[in-house]
Amino acid sequence: MSGTPGDADYLAAAVRAARQGLAEGGIPIGAALIVDGGVLATGWNKRVQLGSAIRHGETDCLENAGRLPATVYARSVMVTTLSPCDMCTGAILLYKIPRVIVGENQTFYGGEELLRARGVEVTVLDDPECVAMMTAFIADRPSLWNEDIGVPD
Amino acid sequence: MSGTPGDADYLAAAVRAARQGLAEGGIPIGAALIVDGGVLATGWNKRVQLGSAIRHGETDCLENAGRLPATVYARSVMVTTLSPCDMCTGAILLYKIPRVIVGENQTFYGGEELLRARGVEVTVLDDPECVAMMTAFIADRPSLWNEDIGVPD
Repeated sequence: MSGTPGDADYLAAAVRAARQGLAEGGIPIGAALIVDGGVLATGWNKRVQLGSAIRHGETDCLENAGRLPATVYARSVMVTTLSPCDMCTGAILLYKIPRVIVGENQTFYGGEELLRARGVEVTVLDDPECVAMMTAFIADRPSLWNEDIGVPD
Repeated sequence: MSGTPGDADYLAAAVRAARQGLAEGGIPIGAALIVDGGVLATGWNKRVQLGSAIRHGETDCLENAGRLPATVYARSVMVTTLSPCDMCTGAILLYKIPRVIVGENQTFYGGEELLRARGVEVTVLDDPECVAMMTAFIADRPSLWNEDIGVPD
């Protein structure tokens, strides 16, 4: 599924965030919250960096964006390098974010069907860099990855 | 729906957490993560206290519990004073927590159907104290409550 012209630029912000996480020794998943065409906030998985069970790319991004009224979320787009897990799917639904851009869903397939069933527009960009980043990470740190998605080792 | 004998004690831990949040000027929703019959961690909504968009009762509790392997979540129970929102529902699903005890679902009805559809046992205790606490809070701070559940004012 291809996106609209600006989608690649939005994804680039999320990819930069994921790379920052990787440089910190973390899990390379990044996100960006776009509002009115601009990047309001970015975030990245901080399981390793903060010992966090809830700071995934999307939730960290929402936390960094701070407290926002529903009217701002209503005109926002969540961009994430990887298909959103159940928790991040739920966070997107809680705040009624109307559109999600997903870098790739080949290494992990999350809540896209639930998002669409609840009226969220989901665009999957099948980005080769996102696939390569996660493929390399999962091969390198399988236990850490399993922990992050709640899967027994 | 009535629970098993220990459920009231577990709920009491979540209610204490909710009261702590209220005492701090926050939204009075609390949670406890029970593992092997004991309280491993508690948490409460910290929207006000931390300016947080993601620290709901259940997610704050998961964060306070720290990084845990899937095998620990697999034998845990999430106890919450209020029916879990979409985000907290998703967090419970991510970590495959098999049982959720809900204090009440009269002031807010969250993701209970999705939880059950995904195989999670959900027990609603219809606790009068939980209902009274949220009813009073919503009447007192309607805008703050709307912000927390992503609803326009």
